Order: sequence, then structure tokens, then C-alpha cells
Amino acid sequence: MSDLAPFEFRIHSRDGHARTATFTTPHGTVQTPMFMPVGTQGSVKGISAQELTEIKSQMILGNTYHLMLRPGAEMVAAHGGLPGFTGYPGPFLTDSGGFQVMSLGHMRKISEHGVVFKSHLDGSLVELTPERSVEVQQSLGADVIMAFDECPPFPAEVPYIRASLERTVRWLERCLNAKTRADQALFAIVQGGIHPELRQQSLDATLPFQTPGFAIGGLAVGESKDEMFPAVAYTARGLPENKPRYLMGVGHPEDLVAGIALGVDMFDCVYPTRTGRFGYALTDDGRLNMNSAAPRQQLIPIDPDCDCYACTHHTRAYLAHLVKAEEMLAPRLLSLHNLRYLHRLVERARSAIRAGEYQAWASEWGERYFRTQATTQTWAGPLPAWFARAVRGED
Amino acid sequence: MSDLAPFEFRIHSRDGHARTATFTTPHGTVQTPMFMPVGTQGSVKGISAQELTEIKSQMILGNTYHLMLRPGAEMVAAHGGLPGFTGYPGPFLTDSGGFQVMSLGHMRKISEHGVVFKSHLDGSLVELTPERSVEVQQSLGADVIMAFDECPPFPAEVPYIRASLERTVRWLERCLNAKTRADQALFAIVQGGIHPELRQQSLDATLPFQTPGFAIGGLAVGESKDEMFPAVAYTARGLPENKPRYLMGVGHPEDLVAGIALGVDMFDCVYPTRTGRFGYALTDDGRLNMNSAAPRQQLIPIDPDCDCYACTHHTRAYLAHLVKAEEMLAPRLLSLHNLRYLHRLVERARSAIRAGEYQAWASEWGERYFRTQATTQTWAGPLPAWFARAVRGED
Repeated sequence: MSDLAPFEFRIHSRDGHARTATFTTPHGTVQTPMFMPVGTQGSVKGISAQELTEIKSQMILGNTYHLMLRPGAEMVAAHGGLPGFTGYPGPFLTDSGGFQVMSLGHMRKISEHGVVFKSHLDGSLVELTPERSVEVQQSLGADVIMAFDECPPFPAEVPYIRASLERTVRWLERCLNAKTRADQALFAIVQGGIHPELRQQSLDATLPFQTPGFAIGGLAVGESKDEMFPAVAYTARGLPENKPRYLMGVGHPEDLVAGIALGVDMFDCVYPTRTGRFGYALTDDGRLNMNSAAPRQQLIPIDPDCDCYACTHHTRAYLAHLVKAEEMLAPRLLSLHNLRYLHRLVERARSAIRAGEYQAWASEWGERYFRTQATTQTWAGPLPAWFARAVRGED
Repeated sequence: MSDLAPFEFRIHSRDGHARTATFTTPHGTVQTPMFMPVGTQGSVKGISAQELTEIKSQMILGNTYHLMLRPGAEMVAAHGGLPGFTGYPGPFLTDSGGFQVMSLGHMRKISEHGVVFKSHLDGSLVELTPERSVEVQQSLGADVIMAFDECPPFPAEVPYIRASLERTVRWLERCLNAKTRADQALFAIVQGGIHPELRQQSLDATLPFQTPGFAIGGLAVGESKDEMFPAVAYTARGLPENKPRYLMGVGHPEDLVAGIALGVDMFDCVYPTRTGRFGYALTDDGRLNMNSAAPRQQLIPIDPDCDCYACTHHTRAYLAHLVKAEEMLAPRLLSLHNLRYLHRLVERARSAIRAGEYQAWASEWGERYFRTQATTQTWAGPLPAWFARAVRGED
């Protein structure tokens, strides 16, 4: 149990490295492992706040970079923070803005003080520092806020990653000094790329700050899954047992199933909404391409086991027609289904953990999921090695 | 009362030419006057079937031209018709396909037999005749189906309009001969442009068929409101009292208020969803431009009296932010509000008719609505002459 009221992280069951827990925040108690939909600019693309509640979303991610530029943190604060601004009454998490700023490439300049970047909206110069990131995140009012860090590009040289993670630790200290609100939990971020020794260095320097949660950053930025998951395993193992662990920017269904096996509690990714906008529907049988001819003839739901609005009201034929006709309702309903799919996936994972059957459940899920993928992709066997290792809890 | 079970049109109150009624169809009883959202390709753009029910939509319009080309009438029939295909369980109305085909211009060729046109999807040649239109509309399964007519362009020469409306009457007879389903009501369409003598000729030739409802066609195609509303008044006055009257492709809020005064019962238009996609919100104070700077600072709903999801959950500032950020949720929520605005407008109109205060209510509504419009447009006075005349029930 974390000792930082009003936040409490209480583990209820364990199965290998996987665990179920409740995480209490000022805006509500959430069940972990959980997937957080991404509400980049104050909306999860195409989805209403009411629908987020209906599909049992728990915590929504907001992007500091986007919101500080537009509409500005003050406007969000004038609504009482993200719940009032967006209409979603539950908990939020904001990132620090660091990741988006870093990905601006030559548009930004990093120094010890912080980062100066050109706004993608009007080209004006904007500065983001640890202190400014915390200030903005305090205005946005999320329950969980993130330390301002650098996420190095992939690949990067070891000396660069080392210098970067050391600066990230100094920035963490500045963030904690800048923070004044007691109703927000600031999570530190462990960096170190795919190098165990750098991950260990980052862990050693970060854990002493005893923040109420820790994120695994710097992954899913271009490395292969064979490189990524050992780094997840190594880092998760080094994090304290009694604090939530958040794998940032991940992921696909298979990443959630593997990450949970390695002890990850929180995930976020734009994947379900983005792939929905491209006409794809997530299922246990892999990703269904609604742009193809077959679904246009199928008078069955995307997934008969799914309780989302699209699956309980519409056939594949209707939804595939909407995709083909480029009707706005198509990306909306596919995004809704895909979010619900990931929420149901973590719900099933929690049940399997509680039953002490996580490894068996995850393997069975993977055998069905990857078998179907194998018809269109080139897996060596029924389960990719990285997935099988992760499900067994190994690096 | 119409004598064609399962259809019944029962007038409950009258106020001048305006009236309230219930129209019973196989898929439900609707209250008139009513506005019908347009579900062109099987979806009201951006809006779910459940939301259509929530905002108290009554009857939804489907487009025969679009649906016959994609997904094809057979696929809709395989779902049991439009309710099963779209998930909206209430009544539907389908147009005949004529209007869209005519608007293809040089892409189509009209003869006594019917129209041959090039599909806008793949350029293939497709034929639409009165018989084929009815066959397709029987597959689509709407409660109300429309006679296959020609809607002449505006302006057109009197001899052309006369020849066209005479052919439309011959096509009406062919439609009625082709119709086999007893659970669909076929409405005839009165043409004649803006010429009283041609409207009278069309009325004289059409009314003897005693269809269960009549539409006023050929308007809102480019003529001014000063030209259009006298034609509406003249035609509505010539239609039987005991049958529903449908003014096709209309309209804007002011058109509904004026048309109801002239005895119109049914309206449809893409305007509320289209203007919503362009970032405009309908209100009693005129059309609110959510692309402008002012709403981005306003912590109030679009309309405090509106009970739609957007108005009960979101500020103008949030919605205007979504518009500016080009978030998909913006056209969705503005379309929802605009549809609800028109539904609330006809609900208020029905109340005023029942209270015997329609003219006073319509004038008061118009004085507020047009005063605001006058700040950006060039009205001669507080009420445009066409509107004032229509509200008084005059040509």
C-alpha cells in the first residue's frame, strides 16, 4: 500500500509477476491492470465522455503538449481541470509534454534548463522545463501527473542515453520541488533504452525519490518486440512491488497480455482509435480488416462476445458499408469497439490473475490471436518467442 | 383520417392552416409537424441510431439512389430493411432516387421509360424507372416510399416544367401499378415550380390517385424564399386536409416555422448535419459560428434551454476548441445539437398550435432569430416579408 493519501495502491491478487490491484485517486478508484484511452487534445478521437464511461474506461490520458498550446492550460483550469473541460468525470493522467516535444526533432533544442521548441500550430517559440511542465499539469488537474523527462530516440548511443537519463533524474528532482498540489500523484519515469545496465542505473537513481508510482519510458519507439520486452521485464522487476507500474505508449493487444505477465499495471496507446479510423477492428482472432470484401457480406457482429454498442447493434456488413462509404460513423464505432476490446482484454486478464491461471490464459489467447495473424504475417511459429517468454515471466 | 390501414393520419388540433396530427405507420406513430433527419447512405452523418432515439427523432429519411448503388438494396433487405440495417427501430421514409439522379446533370438521360445515369461510384450505366424505384424501395422497406418523379432544375421554361409534370403523373401511375407491399405508403409528389397555374395543373392531375400522403416537390432548388413560399402556400392549400403534406428537402429553422404556418406536416434536410460539420450551431438567436473567436472563451452551453448531450455536458469553449483542433467529436456533437434544435423547434411549434397561438409564437421566434441574423446579413426589417406573410398564412 502506498502511504501517500489520497492515493492508495492496494494489491489484491498475484500470479507470477502479474497482479491485480486497486488504485485510489481523488476522482475515483480504478482496477489494474488497466488500459488508458488517449484524449490527446481533450477528446478521445470520435468518442464522447459518456461513451468512455459506458465502455468502462477508467483513467483517461491527456497530452500536456497539445493542451498547453491549445486551448491553453488556463482555459482547462477555468473549467476546473480536465474532468470539467472534457465532461469525463473520472480520473485523468497527463504526460509531461516531454515525449511530444522530443519527437519534434530539429524543431526543438534541449539544454539542462529544459527544451525550447517551435509550436506546430503557429511556429512560435515555446519553452518547456520541469517547472513549467508541472505548472501546466497542475492547471490541467489530472490525478496522476508525469515527471518531465527525455525519451531518447531509437537507436541512440549508450553515452547519449546515459547522459540523458542522468539529466532526467535531475529534472525529476526539479519537478518534485515545483509540485505544490497534494491531490496529484507525480510518477517518475525510468529510462535506459534497451540496455539492462542503463535501466539499472536509472532505477538506482530514480527509486530513492519514492514517488507514488513509476513509469517505464523510452520503449515502443522503434525497437523490435524482441528488444523491447526484455527491457520491460528487467525494469518492472526492479520497481517496488507496492507501487503502480506504467508502461508508457503501449500498446497493441499482445503487448498488454505480455506486459501484464511481466508485472505492468497501466498502459496507454492511440492504437485502438487510430487503427479504428483506418477501418480495422480488434478481435481475439487478430485484426479484422473492415476495408476488405468479406465483412461486407457478413450478417454477424464484429465479435459476438463483445458488449460494445457496435457489436450489440450492428452487423459487420453494415459497419463495413459505412467504412466503404466513408461515413463518419465508421471510425467512431470502430474506435469504440477497439477501446472496449482492450478494456475487456484487461478485464479478462484480471480474472485470470485472480484465478491463478494467467500463464495458461495468456498462452491460449496468444495461440488464437497469433494463429490468425500468421495467415497474413510471417511468424515463425504459433507464438512469437518474445511473447512466449514474457508470458512465462522471463526476460 | 386516412383510410389506408396500417396507416392512419389523425389531426388533433388546428390553428389557421397549421395543424398537429399523429401519423401511424407499421414502425410507429409519429407526431407532426416533424423534421426528418437524412440518413443518406444508411447513417445520419456522425450520429448513432441510439442517439436518434435519444434526441426524439421520429422518422428517418434514406436515399434510394445511394443505397441501391451501395451496399445494394438486396443487402439492406437481407437485414430485414432499413431498421435492421441501420439499427434505428422506428419509421423510415425513402425518396425515389429521382432527385439525386436528376441532379447528375449531363451524367443522365431522361426518357418516358425512365432515367439512365452513370453511377458516381464506378461510372457504370444504371437505369432507374418508376417500376425499378418502387422495387428498390420495397427492398429497403421504409414505411413511406415516394413516387418516382422529375424535379426540374431552376430556372426552367414553362413548357419544360409542364411536360415534366405530366410525365411525373404518368410515372406516378406506373409506381402505383408496380407497388405490391401493403405495409408501405406511397406518397405522390406535386410539381410545377413556382408557377401557380402549373402547381394547379399538377394538383388536378395528382389528387385523383388518392395516395395516403402528398409531397410538395421541386422547391428549394435555387429559387428565392420570396418565390418559394408562395408556391408552398398555394400547393399546400390545394392538398386534401386529411392527408400528410411533406415539403421535400426543406429546411432551415425559418423554413420550418414558415412551412408549418402554411399547413406543412413533414420536412427533411441535410442542413443541420452539414452546417454542424462546418462548425455552426443552430440557436433561437441565429446560427452560432463556432469557428469564431468568441465561443472559445464562453463557459456556457450553446443553448441553456437545449436538452441535447452537447448542451447538457459541454461548454461553448470546449466545443469551439474541438472545432479549432479539428477533432472528430466536434462535427458529431454539433450535428447532434442541430438535429435536436430542429426537433425541439417543431415540438414548440406543436405546442403553439395546440394552444392556438401559432402566429404569435412564430412571429416572436422570428423576431429574435432574424434580429440576430440581421447583424451579419442584410434584412430590410426585423422580419423578412416572405416569413411574415407565411406566418400569417398568406401566399
